[in-house]
Amino acid sequence: MTALIHIAIDAMSGDRGPSVSVPAAIAAAREFSDVRFTLIGRQADLEREMGGAPPSNVSCLFAADVVEMTDHPREALRRKKDSSMRRAIDLVKAKAAHACVSAGNTGALMATAHFVLKMLPGVERPAIVSLIPSRGGHTYMLDLGANASCTPEQLSQFAVMGSVLAADLEGAHEKPRVGLLNIGSEDIKGNDIVQAAHNLLAASGINYVGFVEGHDIFSDEVDVVVTDGFTGNVALKAMEGVARLIGEIMREEFTRTTLRKAGAAVAKPALNAIRARLDPRRYNGASMIGLNGIVIKSHGGADLFGFQRAIEVAVQEARNDLPARVAQRLSASREA
Amino acid sequence: MTALIHIAIDAMSGDRGPSVSVPAAIAAAREFSDVRFTLIGRQADLEREMGGAPPSNVSCLFAADVVEMTDHPREALRRKKDSSMRRAIDLVKAKAAHACVSAGNTGALMATAHFVLKMLPGVERPAIVSLIPSRGGHTYMLDLGANASCTPEQLSQFAVMGSVLAADLEGAHEKPRVGLLNIGSEDIKGNDIVQAAHNLLAASGINYVGFVEGHDIFSDEVDVVVTDGFTGNVALKAMEGVARLIGEIMREEFTRTTLRKAGAAVAKPALNAIRARLDPRRYNGASMIGLNGIVIKSHGGADLFGFQRAIEVAVQEARNDLPARVAQRLSASREA
Repeated sequence: MTALIHIAIDAMSGDRGPSVSVPAAIAAAREFSDVRFTLIGRQADLEREMGGAPPSNVSCLFAADVVEMTDHPREALRRKKDSSMRRAIDLVKAKAAHACVSAGNTGALMATAHFVLKMLPGVERPAIVSLIPSRGGHTYMLDLGANASCTPEQLSQFAVMGSVLAADLEGAHEKPRVGLLNIGSEDIKGNDIVQAAHNLLAASGINYVGFVEGHDIFSDEVDVVVTDGFTGNVALKAMEGVARLIGEIMREEFTRTTLRKAGAAVAKPALNAIRARLDPRRYNGASMIGLNGIVIKSHGGADLFGFQRAIEVAVQEARNDLPARVAQRLSASREA
Repeated sequence: MTALIHIAIDAMSGDRGPSVSVPAAIAAAREFSDVRFTLIGRQADLEREMGGAPPSNVSCLFAADVVEMTDHPREALRRKKDSSMRRAIDLVKAKAAHACVSAGNTGALMATAHFVLKMLPGVERPAIVSLIPSRGGHTYMLDLGANASCTPEQLSQFAVMGSVLAADLEGAHEKPRVGLLNIGSEDIKGNDIVQAAHNLLAASGINYVGFVEGHDIFSDEVDVVVTDGFTGNVALKAMEGVARLIGEIMREEFTRTTLRKAGAAVAKPALNAIRARLDPRRYNGASMIGLNGIVIKSHGGADLFGFQRAIEVAVQEARNDLPARVAQRLSASREA
């Protein structure tokens, strides 16, 4: 492994495949001249998209297969050993790359990464973690869907991993504030699992602030929000759904009449600023944390801007050598 | 019980107590001249707020105690037998009122209602159900927090109850489309509980459309969304959190400069329309369904407009004799 950071990109992944991933990688290569990028995919597709003279820190690796969005994870793992997705993960396993990025089939990516890379010592299950915009910045939330049910121990491991991630990638917070999602009813303080996880977290040595509720994700009173993958996935998609609905309502109301359209034109600077702040593409790039290697999942529908953000997340985590830092922290908390 | 619909109102409940509940009840009494309202609370508070000449269909019942937001549900149930909340529920139990409305302590309201009214035959647990705005109208979602964990049978009961509620209160949908919340990963199709509930629902005789994801709540492709109270509560609060955050961002961006403020003035008709469509007060009034009686929970922070909506939900459910309809439907589905 050279000193240079090296990122492997599953170029066939995502709804628009190489027509998005290749220009995104080229843009990232221009942004990070000290990082090397390997685009992996079918020769014809890559050559078509690469065009004339790509930056010298971009190269190609050809792979004949493609994991489709409809492929069953187990089948993809078994039968598509020459897929761009598998090759990207294999490079990370061989320590020939520091991280890989894919916008492909989440289940297949998780299953393959889990099988090939294995878990960090002390972590039972990988978790999906992503940034969520909040009032004054953003919050890390996990698990967003890797595990439909979790034990208290797994939730506690997620909390430690989220804490390391937030500390390393933010810098600002030496001791990120970690909250455990629960419901606010006075009657029922959550189920047995969150109760047991609460006790584990209180003794974990991280900066655990206790139970938080759904709205606290946006409050800036917590840096990391931990929950199981079922609740996390539903909440994430519900949040995205609300944001999209509000966007649609805004468009509808601002185009309803000629007068309203004129109003929108005058209000354009504010509307553009609102759109920019709520742009979900800025938060693209979820980490599959807990694996012995860095795997970043981009939204399947990401455009060039969004895919580039996912690549940036990979670069950032590779620079911080995140898996090693997580393993270190977990080992310290086991010894404590 | 007279032929007139009669609604009992816990007038001491909510952050602003009788200063909101009394004028809301008076407004509702003017709107529904064929409905009778009983305001329950401390004599001095009620008399102060009632003022001169309330409508003839509003009367008062005095109760010395008040359940506070900080009261433990069990303590409220045991020690505050002369509270406005307890008296309101007692009226429903005695069939002297068709429904009660409270903006008080959710846990205490649930515990007291459960204890006093008991469950409908065939229902193990009450669920909290509310309207959620969707693209073209709204969706009924339950459970929003009464049960931190649910069995497949309980989820199935929630689905039947939600279906009856949507059919009766909407009219339009004879066979409301019911979906079960799940996560969308190809890898893990949810946990054992949703899998088992899925099978029960497929055989339940309701119009079950299968698994839905978080964003489908807003899609108009489903009329009722069923989930456990943990996921439902977290998702609801996360959705409210996003909506509030977007509202704040809009206000911030539209007031950032004098020019932007001028833009906002020109865009006012559209901005007002957006605000009205997203106004959470329109969706105030959650039902505690499954109980042998109608109990409507208003947000603690509801204002006159919001509290009045909660009263309207109570009137609507009372007119449809909802508990009897739910019991009927559940009994039919057990015999089928």
